[in-house]
Amino acid sequence: MEAPSATKETNGPTNGQAHPPPDMYLQPTQRATGNFTEELEGQKTSENISGIRSALGLHSNAPIAEEHDLAEHQDLMWSRVKLALREPLAEFFGVFILVLFGDGSVAQVLLSNKAGTSTQTTAPGGSGFGAYQSISWGWGLGVMLGIYVAGDSGAYLNPAITFANCYYRQLPWRRFPMYFLAQFLGGFVAAGVIYANYVNAINAYEGGPGLRTVPPAPNATAGVFCTYPQPFLTKTSQFFSEFIASTILMFVIFALKDESNNGASKGGGNWFPLGLFFLIFGLGACFGWETGYAINFARDFGPRLMSFALGYGHEVWSAGGYYFWIPMVAPFCGCWFGGLLYDGFIYTGESPVNTPWLGLKYLIRPDLAVKARIERRRRLEAQGTPV
Amino acid sequence: MEAPSATKETNGPTNGQAHPPPDMYLQPTQRATGNFTEELEGQKTSENISGIRSALGLHSNAPIAEEHDLAEHQDLMWSRVKLALREPLAEFFGVFILVLFGDGSVAQVLLSNKAGTSTQTTAPGGSGFGAYQSISWGWGLGVMLGIYVAGDSGAYLNPAITFANCYYRQLPWRRFPMYFLAQFLGGFVAAGVIYANYVNAINAYEGGPGLRTVPPAPNATAGVFCTYPQPFLTKTSQFFSEFIASTILMFVIFALKDESNNGASKGGGNWFPLGLFFLIFGLGACFGWETGYAINFARDFGPRLMSFALGYGHEVWSAGGYYFWIPMVAPFCGCWFGGLLYDGFIYTGESPVNTPWLGLKYLIRPDLAVKARIERRRRLEAQGTPV
Amino acid sequence: MEAPSATKETNGPTNGQAHPPPDMYLQPTQRATGNFTEELEGQKTSENISGIRSALGLHSNAPIAEEHDLAEHQDLMWSRVKLALREPLAEFFGVFILVLFGDGSVAQVLLSNKAGTSTQTTAPGGSGFGAYQSISWGWGLGVMLGIYVAGDSGAYLNPAITFANCYYRQLPWRRFPMYFLAQFLGGFVAAGVIYANYVNAINAYEGGPGLRTVPPAPNATAGVFCTYPQPFLTKTSQFFSEFIASTILMFVIFALKDESNNGASKGGGNWFPLGLFFLIFGLGACFGWETGYAINFARDFGPRLMSFALGYGHEVWSAGGYYFWIPMVAPFCGCWFGGLLYDGFIYTGESPVNTPWLGLKYLIRPDLAVKARIERRRRLEAQGTPV
Amino acid sequence: MEAPSATKETNGPTNGQAHPPPDMYLQPTQRATGNFTEELEGQKTSENISGIRSALGLHSNAPIAEEHDLAEHQDLMWSRVKLALREPLAEFFGVFILVLFGDGSVAQVLLSNKAGTSTQTTAPGGSGFGAYQSISWGWGLGVMLGIYVAGDSGAYLNPAITFANCYYRQLPWRRFPMYFLAQFLGGFVAAGVIYANYVNAINAYEGGPGLRTVPPAPNATAGVFCTYPQPFLTKTSQFFSEFIASTILMFVIFALKDESNNGASKGGGNWFPLGLFFLIFGLGACFGWETGYAINFARDFGPRLMSFALGYGHEVWSAGGYYFWIPMVAPFCGCWFGGLLYDGFIYTGESPVNTPWLGLKYLIRPDLAVKARIERRRRLEAQGTPV
Repeated sequence: MEAPSATKETNGPTNGQAHPPPDMYLQPTQRATGNFTEELEGQKTSENISGIRSALGLHSNAPIAEEHDLAEHQDLMWSRVKLALREPLAEFFGVFILVLFGDGSVAQVLLSNKAGTSTQTTAPGGSGFGAYQSISWGWGLGVMLGIYVAGDSGAYLNPAITFANCYYRQLPWRRFPMYFLAQFLGGFVAAGVIYANYVNAINAYEGGPGLRTVPPAPNATAGVFCTYPQPFLTKTSQFFSEFIASTILMFVIFALKDESNNGASKGGGNWFPLGLFFLIFGLGACFGWETGYAINFARDFGPRLMSFALGYGHEVWSAGGYYFWIPMVAPFCGCWFGGLLYDGFIYTGESPVNTPWLGLKYLIRPDLAVKARIERRRRLEAQGTPV
Repeated sequence: MEAPSATKETNGPTNGQAHPPPDMYLQPTQRATGNFTEELEGQKTSENISGIRSALGLHSNAPIAEEHDLAEHQDLMWSRVKLALREPLAEFFGVFILVLFGDGSVAQVLLSNKAGTSTQTTAPGGSGFGAYQSISWGWGLGVMLGIYVAGDSGAYLNPAITFANCYYRQLPWRRFPMYFLAQFLGGFVAAGVIYANYVNAINAYEGGPGLRTVPPAPNATAGVFCTYPQPFLTKTSQFFSEFIASTILMFVIFALKDESNNGASKGGGNWFPLGLFFLIFGLGACFGWETGYAINFARDFGPRLMSFALGYGHEVWSAGGYYFWIPMVAPFCGCWFGGLLYDGFIYTGESPVNTPWLGLKYLIRPDLAVKARIERRRRLEAQGTPV
Repeated sequence: MEAPSATKETNGPTNGQAHPPPDMYLQPTQRATGNFTEELEGQKTSENISGIRSALGLHSNAPIAEEHDLAEHQDLMWSRVKLALREPLAEFFGVFILVLFGDGSVAQVLLSNKAGTSTQTTAPGGSGFGAYQSISWGWGLGVMLGIYVAGDSGAYLNPAITFANCYYRQLPWRRFPMYFLAQFLGGFVAAGVIYANYVNAINAYEGGPGLRTVPPAPNATAGVFCTYPQPFLTKTSQFFSEFIASTILMFVIFALKDESNNGASKGGGNWFPLGLFFLIFGLGACFGWETGYAINFARDFGPRLMSFALGYGHEVWSAGGYYFWIPMVAPFCGCWFGGLLYDGFIYTGESPVNTPWLGLKYLIRPDLAVKARIERRRRLEAQGTPV
Repeated sequence: MEAPSATKETNGPTNGQAHPPPDMYLQPTQRATGNFTEELEGQKTSENISGIRSALGLHSNAPIAEEHDLAEHQDLMWSRVKLALREPLAEFFGVFILVLFGDGSVAQVLLSNKAGTSTQTTAPGGSGFGAYQSISWGWGLGVMLGIYVAGDSGAYLNPAITFANCYYRQLPWRRFPMYFLAQFLGGFVAAGVIYANYVNAINAYEGGPGLRTVPPAPNATAGVFCTYPQPFLTKTSQFFSEFIASTILMFVIFALKDESNNGASKGGGNWFPLGLFFLIFGLGACFGWETGYAINFARDFGPRLMSFALGYGHEVWSAGGYYFWIPMVAPFCGCWFGGLLYDGFIYTGESPVNTPWLGLKYLIRPDLAVKARIERRRRLEAQGTPV
């Protein structure tokens, strides 16, 4: 889907420095003072680690604060591993926190509200430990806190968002595989932790330790881990619901990240994580019913695979008319389209959409894309920007 | 309704530069450093685009960051269209996002809570996918995210607010038509997207694909798109409810935008979007029951027209005793009155209220208003402020 | 209760300048740069207005931004009235907004939830237009937005908080009467607006236009305007509940305003209004049940008097065993005690508690308090701080 | 558990200055300008107070703003007591506020929702004064406001977090006992205030003034004060639930405090308290059902002891299979593990994990830890950093 063939020539491991630092995640003031640049220059990432990192598709220099880089512990084996895998570790733990809170909120609301059992009556107020809105809170703040955790990798936390940043924002395509793997594993492991935490409650809800069922079974608990569509939806509507939510997600994220947009970028302060809380909360409150607003391969497929491994059976794939592929594919389509909308109508900076034929020319003439990329690097080098 | 005849002489297309940049949307620190001014001077908006923009009632220079303006893509056709329609596009997408979240939240809460159907029982907790409070969240964060998206146009997102800014804050009246059109279209299109997303659920709720009914019909779904009043309201109360909500809206927005008010403007940070979240949330929680707090021509009439186009029938106009005109007119009256209250009792800066007879003199002597405007431009030019 | 006799000699109208600007409401950075001082010096408040303001107990110079003060409209009658009454107008509208949202939220939740009537069934979800939590939102964001509106007066919005600032933070006692009057009127008028907005719904809830009843009557609507205690409370518990909530209110506000407390004051940004949202929300969610967390003379007595004027009868005073005086008195006691706790255990700056005998010496030797005040003014003058 | 033997030699009272100021709680900009350092140098804490403070395990210089330190009241007895106990007082009141809001929210939701009594029917909307989500709000904003109050002590508010900061972040171990005592007392006293406030409601709920019962008794009110586990949990699950919640707590706090993590530290503004609101809210919404997310010795044991003193009987200890020790022990284990995860995979600064054998070498060679600590102090002194 995202074969980086067109860019491989210029982005191979041998010239790992050949891309800008991920400074789209820095605040404008930081850019202005250029302190990130200084950090990069001050770094002492060894040749050895640089080689490994380039081979993994990462920038040859790990994003690490200068004063930490000078610490004497760089010769320790584990510290070198951390350095080599810095961004993947950040993405892993970002998605890990995201899914812990997200799946945890579904688990608590679903499992504590079973009518006719003793779980509900123990709640203060007698109506369970949370309602649907708790789930909006859980996913919203999970994304917010995940972004705080994964600050050093760009905090994409979603393969479709990584994909759109490669497509529209010059993130090198060779980053994609490692980021993708880390994000998927974060969701996979977090689902296992949620299962371990709620296993007693799942047993009580299903009716016994041996029972594990998938919606629309009456006591199904598989919905704790991944999304299942409402029964009244056609296949087209399943796809459209995920598609439109992903489109909104990417459109608003690009607006929040757009330095030339007065709405979000001016006035200082790191409002992005809080903005994402509101965005994800809103998607849950306004587009979360029909298909559960997966909008994220890592958040849906990772836990789905874990639930399969935990014994929920083949129905995790076949439920909803083999719905499982929709939250794998639709987020990529939706984020691509959301980026197209934003770049096509609002964004004025460097984007394939702001090239001839709205960027479609590159599709039939990939050599032009390569040429534009080389051109761009030369311009940045001439300006003294580290590339 | 707001014929700009009195100001046309001085604001015709021929002197498009004759107004200040919309710097009331910048933070104080930005004004101080004057970086917006530099951006404007650095711009290379071609003569051709300037002419089109002036003809549309926009400032002759598009608000665009300097480094983006230097990009080589300005010679592309689509990039020129984007530049010519920059503010209308921003307003369109701002209202688009606003109505997507707002109408989406109503759709989800209303359609997922039908007693006696299968939609409700699938909810974690068994009581639908959201309650009334979700709707407060939806509209509140819709406005917040819409403001982030529409930062480059001023993010009015509401014709009545544009109107009040023309009346009280020297926004040129000739801006109004294009902003109005863009805002209306944003609401219109967003309602169509919501319909496409929830069409299966609407069918299930109404009882079939051919049924589309308007409150107070028992299975009515027209309330997803636009507002309908409670049955116990008199016509006066319908108007008053919209009027008082719009008054509060404008009063608080002017307070939040008032640079000389220590409450909001001091201490740095772009708190305006978050403040609007709380304001809209509060209007929904405190004044949202009786008439649904439309307080916005674009948010109500746009989706109402779309629902008419989608087959909800003549009742979208006749319901509530031909209530439909109230959310068209009352917001203008309310925002005008809210501005009058704020300028009349709190605001100390330049405002028609701070002129002889509380500004009423201008109503009978429009030549004085024109003279004051010319005077003002001269003073700003003498200070070196770009006008 | 707060007779300013001890301080009158030094604070009479003749030396109106003899107190510092209310810069405890400025951010630290503003103090450092002293821009508020410059504003004051640049002001051209006429002798005439200064005299009126001093006679009203206000600072002789109105808090107004310099560039506004230079505007030519200072010779207009109404502009001079606004200038003379600047802080009272700010407090009036601050409490007005506060009570509009607060009472509005109670009205909407209470009146839209009557079982067995048609009002409830029209709600999306079928359970009324809001639940108890909406009321926490309403009061919390009402305070937040009221603070934004009333930034130029200090935004006390509560006579007990004004009182504690006079007692502990050197706000001149002669400010108290005008602030008190403005705050009371704000609550009084806002309650009338809420009544006008919800009169149809009140009629429907009570059972007819002529019926106006007070809790514990079954269809009582008086609770929309002011607080009534739960029936199981003793008089002592009524008092204690208001007392402890007011204590927490003042304790946390003093912490949030304490420049020497790293918790709130460092790191920049105007977090105070948002902090107050959470504080008031929390008081509603944690201490709001028993007596309705009035914690504010203006918020409770103002609307109570309005409801009496609107025909709710003598029961507005006699309900709950003549409970009405408790939200008048307890907030003053609680805020006094909260200030004592904060200054006695945390605050290290200038406070009567940080004087001999924890400040109690001043109670028996008021001449010492006067002497300390004179001493303080001299010290500030020597430092060049405007007093 | 946290015997500070290994470090005592270098951290005895005689060299109280031998540790850095708690500047991990300052914003990056403050560090850069070094204004905290200047404050310390400007301090005039008397020799006498310094000695007492060192004996208590505190830094010899109290954290106090310079201009306050110059005030003439330092010779007052009570002011000296405040100075000597500055951090413990801050921690006491921080936990006090935290537990007031937290326990208060549980009390209001639990006690106002008893089916079949008159308490519920008085609620606007008829369903009690709050639902489970109110409790998430209560604890979340309690922590947030507690952090604002306790800014001068570091605002740990939790012995397990103090412990992890000693272990991973070079907070001297001798701080632990006083902080621990203050935190415990804060929770203990706050529970008493909550009892005093809600004693009438507790009587009504239990059925009489003499009745005080513990879950799973049908009218139990002991859950107001401390946590009791769900009946379906095994002992292992009880422990795991507290463990995983504490792990997440520490992991995210370390991320939010990590200056080298772009996620939270860059862009300015004091976002930490708001971030903690979302974190605690999330733990309540996602991990709060099974064991009540105590995650804090002081929050659970303090109120538990108070409820025992108030007559809830031996069951406060024996309930849930002598569950009471789990919220005492699990938070320490969880916070230790959360810190290990963060430092082991993300953190690049100075930490025992970033030493040979992931820090485990220090366990068998404590002399190396001492040596490293001395080494570190020398390096800081050479750089001119006050230690």
